[in-house]
Amino acid sequence: MNAKALVLEQQHELSLREIDLPDQLGDEDVRVRIHTVGICGSDVHYYTHGRIGPFVVNEPMVLGHEASGTVIEVGRHVTHLAAGDRVCMEPGIPDLASRASKLGAYNVDPAVRFWATPPIHGCLTPEVVHPAAFTFRLPDSVSFAEGAMVEPFAIGMQAVARADVQAGDVCVVTGAGPIGLMVALAALAGGASEVLVSDLVDDKLAIAGGYTGVTPINVSRESLRDAVSRRCGEDWGADVVFEASGSPKVYDDLLACARPAGTVVLVGMPVEPVTLDVVAAQAKELHIETVFRYANVYDRAIALMGSGKVDLKPLISATFPFERSVEAFERAAAGHAEDVKLQITLDE
Amino acid sequence: MNAKALVLEQQHELSLREIDLPDQLGDEDVRVRIHTVGICGSDVHYYTHGRIGPFVVNEPMVLGHEASGTVIEVGRHVTHLAAGDRVCMEPGIPDLASRASKLGAYNVDPAVRFWATPPIHGCLTPEVVHPAAFTFRLPDSVSFAEGAMVEPFAIGMQAVARADVQAGDVCVVTGAGPIGLMVALAALAGGASEVLVSDLVDDKLAIAGGYTGVTPINVSRESLRDAVSRRCGEDWGADVVFEASGSPKVYDDLLACARPAGTVVLVGMPVEPVTLDVVAAQAKELHIETVFRYANVYDRAIALMGSGKVDLKPLISATFPFERSVEAFERAAAGHAEDVKLQITLDE
Amino acid sequence: MNAKALVLEQQHELSLREIDLPDQLGDEDVRVRIHTVGICGSDVHYYTHGRIGPFVVNEPMVLGHEASGTVIEVGRHVTHLAAGDRVCMEPGIPDLASRASKLGAYNVDPAVRFWATPPIHGCLTPEVVHPAAFTFRLPDSVSFAEGAMVEPFAIGMQAVARADVQAGDVCVVTGAGPIGLMVALAALAGGASEVLVSDLVDDKLAIAGGYTGVTPINVSRESLRDAVSRRCGEDWGADVVFEASGSPKVYDDLLACARPAGTVVLVGMPVEPVTLDVVAAQAKELHIETVFRYANVYDRAIALMGSGKVDLKPLISATFPFERSVEAFERAAAGHAEDVKLQITLDE
Amino acid sequence: MNAKALVLEQQHELSLREIDLPDQLGDEDVRVRIHTVGICGSDVHYYTHGRIGPFVVNEPMVLGHEASGTVIEVGRHVTHLAAGDRVCMEPGIPDLASRASKLGAYNVDPAVRFWATPPIHGCLTPEVVHPAAFTFRLPDSVSFAEGAMVEPFAIGMQAVARADVQAGDVCVVTGAGPIGLMVALAALAGGASEVLVSDLVDDKLAIAGGYTGVTPINVSRESLRDAVSRRCGEDWGADVVFEASGSPKVYDDLLACARPAGTVVLVGMPVEPVTLDVVAAQAKELHIETVFRYANVYDRAIALMGSGKVDLKPLISATFPFERSVEAFERAAAGHAEDVKLQITLDE
Repeated sequence: MNAKALVLEQQHELSLREIDLPDQLGDEDVRVRIHTVGICGSDVHYYTHGRIGPFVVNEPMVLGHEASGTVIEVGRHVTHLAAGDRVCMEPGIPDLASRASKLGAYNVDPAVRFWATPPIHGCLTPEVVHPAAFTFRLPDSVSFAEGAMVEPFAIGMQAVARADVQAGDVCVVTGAGPIGLMVALAALAGGASEVLVSDLVDDKLAIAGGYTGVTPINVSRESLRDAVSRRCGEDWGADVVFEASGSPKVYDDLLACARPAGTVVLVGMPVEPVTLDVVAAQAKELHIETVFRYANVYDRAIALMGSGKVDLKPLISATFPFERSVEAFERAAAGHAEDVKLQITLDE
Repeated sequence: MNAKALVLEQQHELSLREIDLPDQLGDEDVRVRIHTVGICGSDVHYYTHGRIGPFVVNEPMVLGHEASGTVIEVGRHVTHLAAGDRVCMEPGIPDLASRASKLGAYNVDPAVRFWATPPIHGCLTPEVVHPAAFTFRLPDSVSFAEGAMVEPFAIGMQAVARADVQAGDVCVVTGAGPIGLMVALAALAGGASEVLVSDLVDDKLAIAGGYTGVTPINVSRESLRDAVSRRCGEDWGADVVFEASGSPKVYDDLLACARPAGTVVLVGMPVEPVTLDVVAAQAKELHIETVFRYANVYDRAIALMGSGKVDLKPLISATFPFERSVEAFERAAAGHAEDVKLQITLDE
Repeated sequence: MNAKALVLEQQHELSLREIDLPDQLGDEDVRVRIHTVGICGSDVHYYTHGRIGPFVVNEPMVLGHEASGTVIEVGRHVTHLAAGDRVCMEPGIPDLASRASKLGAYNVDPAVRFWATPPIHGCLTPEVVHPAAFTFRLPDSVSFAEGAMVEPFAIGMQAVARADVQAGDVCVVTGAGPIGLMVALAALAGGASEVLVSDLVDDKLAIAGGYTGVTPINVSRESLRDAVSRRCGEDWGADVVFEASGSPKVYDDLLACARPAGTVVLVGMPVEPVTLDVVAAQAKELHIETVFRYANVYDRAIALMGSGKVDLKPLISATFPFERSVEAFERAAAGHAEDVKLQITLDE
Repeated sequence: MNAKALVLEQQHELSLREIDLPDQLGDEDVRVRIHTVGICGSDVHYYTHGRIGPFVVNEPMVLGHEASGTVIEVGRHVTHLAAGDRVCMEPGIPDLASRASKLGAYNVDPAVRFWATPPIHGCLTPEVVHPAAFTFRLPDSVSFAEGAMVEPFAIGMQAVARADVQAGDVCVVTGAGPIGLMVALAALAGGASEVLVSDLVDDKLAIAGGYTGVTPINVSRESLRDAVSRRCGEDWGADVVFEASGSPKVYDDLLACARPAGTVVLVGMPVEPVTLDVVAAQAKELHIETVFRYANVYDRAIALMGSGKVDLKPLISATFPFERSVEAFERAAAGHAEDVKLQITLDE
């Protein structure tokens, strides 16, 4: 089927044009009219760099993987969804019969196909076909704009699940970018009594600090260790420390700020290998968890947003119509500190 | 040392009188001037029944175990607390060298000595000596009245810890009495997106329903199963179901309302053994957790109250001066549906 | 396709006859020539009672679900298996896209289709088609006879996984029938230093006691509590207590024999609801786990058998050719204490 | 009290001489006549280097922390031990009232006092006083020589507990030195079906390979990745990979050899910070656990040795009388590949 889509032709070259996309509806699939798509840092990175690690844009690829929309057709075996349902979609489709999937860790199935990760097309196009098992109904209280925020929030939810955050935990998040914010909000929703968020940029910290329970720390003015000591005592630390900056420089702080037998969660993806002081981690017998996308958290994320415990609306910085998608990407690529999430709407 | 105290002389007989109490301050102890003491259902039960299971009131015993106050003296080795600190106290003192304590489960150390559990005196007296390790500083934002609520809230926290509540869980609590409320609030603080609380008494449900995230279910009008199906779907259920009513009649519902691979947590203490449909539990491969008091949750409970995530003030129904302690117990024994927590103040 | 099979026509009536069975090979399937099939207590129960709980034999059904054999054809997408592979098969086929399956708990997917559970045909027939994802290659060191033991052993493995048995645990198993033996052997393989197995029948206990690490306890001569006290001390208990007898009479012992903060695992399926002393369980804050079949343990079971850590050969009491299947079932129905597992071979 | 002891006077200088040692028996203590003491790599390291990280030998210190012996006197409150009991001792004494200890993680209590870690004296002296809570009775089937092996084996047990090894796991251990061997044996005892142990030295690998279930891999001849792929398949890996070599060079292999959602456990202590490829760990969403000494594993280790599941006797390479202690240390410092454990006996 030919459809209009935002196509990354190659590094630095975007076009909004017709492209041939698969549109066959399987028995377990739904067809969704896309309403809103958020722009993710990875979309921008493919645009500006043409690759992320081993994933290289070798041929034109539709961008976008943070989407909400409306079901317009369902496959023969689909019973939990119906035409007219407002939904959002989990963008990775694993082989459900794989060893990892059977274990419940379908996010690390090596065969997973993920929207807008080469060579798989994304969802910045008016209609997509998607497995019903990875399509989730939105409650009335969650708008399409918020529905398109479920995907980035799911990363925060996954980090919190991996950390096994407990009621009353004191947490630290290094980095107040979009992922750091999502982690901080998921930690608060998941039981943290307080989250200290560190960054060097006051504009970003101001957004984080707008949430009750977040204590912003500008590490250009106070060391993170001092802030944590002040809160947790000299000989203790945070229950969970989340790395969400991607900076290799924070790794010593991660270990220093965790309490004995505490947990460090690596969410940010540093471009180079980091230096890790193993003995320092051992002296506290720390748990170190890593995060890769998410599994089994979409319904939970939606429930928290639907019940009002998590409010992501303040993080939507600007919205562009589909026709101005390229402009939206250019603004995203410019990287304004006060922009958390830019979105594109296709269905007005 | 002779001190005034509220003494349960025997079943049905309370007196406010002088009694000889230990007052030697060990090296690891603190001396606390008591400010507020809450009345617990167990205090009332010793008053009205003279016993709880194997624990029998055979000689006069001071009541009270939900206390806050001010440190007035510290033992030689105490470094984390100082005179003047506003505190609350964890009322069970285990043998820290026991096998259970070394495992971190000091609450189930068979040798634990617990305030107002025969033959151990409670804290309804102006001054107590207590181990510093079980005495916790209150932040300025937590009043003495709230400080005396930490103990009952800790039971909710323990239930939530045992359940390992995760961000976005849908929970059910059977019973809207004080313990049910504490469990519901701890579940919300610990990540639940929604808690369905069931009871037969509208007055109790109204108090529960006053909290955002709580859905009250009057099971005289709608079955709990129907309410859960409506929320979770016909072939699914709640992630965690907490039993907090003490009624043996709810056990079939507990199993029916949990999702496959879900968790049931037994907090309420039924007076007789219950009937359990083991095969029904197996068909969903449920986890069943039991709760006994609490361990390692006081600091977490205080952190959640201090940061404003948990507000227990609406649950304090009335406050009596120490001189009117007996009257307070008589009101508690009368069991008004709208009374959640009655407190006694000793230090004005 | 018409094929010969052992058909349960109705309660009490077995015949070895031709029956029409599905034989279409899907892209993800393998075709297996069956070599050995073990007779399970549930097969016998359908034969003698015509039902198990809600599962009723309303029309002729092929029996058998403990099978090994040889792959003779593979579907187009199958890459991990090839014709000639010696294999065993996990008999339950879930909907892999279900909510439970995505969580890794495919055994409690309500839509699971399980061999020889009405109305699904079993595998006592020369050839079956099965999903490759639930077909497991046997190492050379594991015979077909042992391969057909993987299914019952998997129940023991699941019980041990649910219990989270740790290295050095002292365990108790009530019941020395086939399931009790499988649980005991899985517990030893999974880290138990010692397993006390209780029963009333010396012949069964003798088989259990033949394994190093098993201590048989005949509870007609010594109470289980005394035996556990002797091993674990008066004020402690077993780390994990497995119920594998199906008897409601052992439930007080289960709670009494577990240590504080220990675990009770309910594997046996009592025909009636049991009486549970909730307060006794709470006083030790016990974890109670239930078990339903198994998930994600087949490869682990095979690895343990292949490396020689688990030897199930002594449990194979007798082997019958396919032609004498009815006789094999009659012997199984007779319930000789010294018969642990009877097997039928189809492929000589 | 003056007593003879093996004293490290300073780096490179050992003497067997009289030294003043504390000998006051507290109410909760036992007095133990030492029988056997093993020589640990850390003892040797203090001898050859005068320090380990921040722990510096600034004044004469008695060496030794792997000990067994006989109780000769018990404190007033001790009930679980009696004079004549054969025992071994856990060498770290934490503050049991600390925050970490109350959580069950007393090994990471910052205030822990550990034998032969400056400035705390060790146990290479005929008599010691020790808390009964950290003294463990040996069954008749465990000799004094084996009793002195409990300490190093406990490190393996802790690693296995941190990894949460499950029945049937395939494990890898990098490094076939004493710690690698202990980890491998604990992993097998804790459920591993097979452990691949890698090293460069055939003599060490031969000792490891003498145990059923251990597959030795000489990485000078075959890469560890190839060995793991051969065993686990191209697109899978080991369930748990233990680092026990202390070499920073193996870190890429650790990540490469673990399966998706698998676990890496850092036991070896590299002298410098290592380079960690965070994105490689994230792509598989690995858990990384660190290990610091042990907690709550002594009784489990002894149970496994007592039941015959773990046989450490082949690892005792030579035994020296107390009078030849210095010679024993010199041999240990020479570092013969075929020496796993050297022991010193004091009580003949």
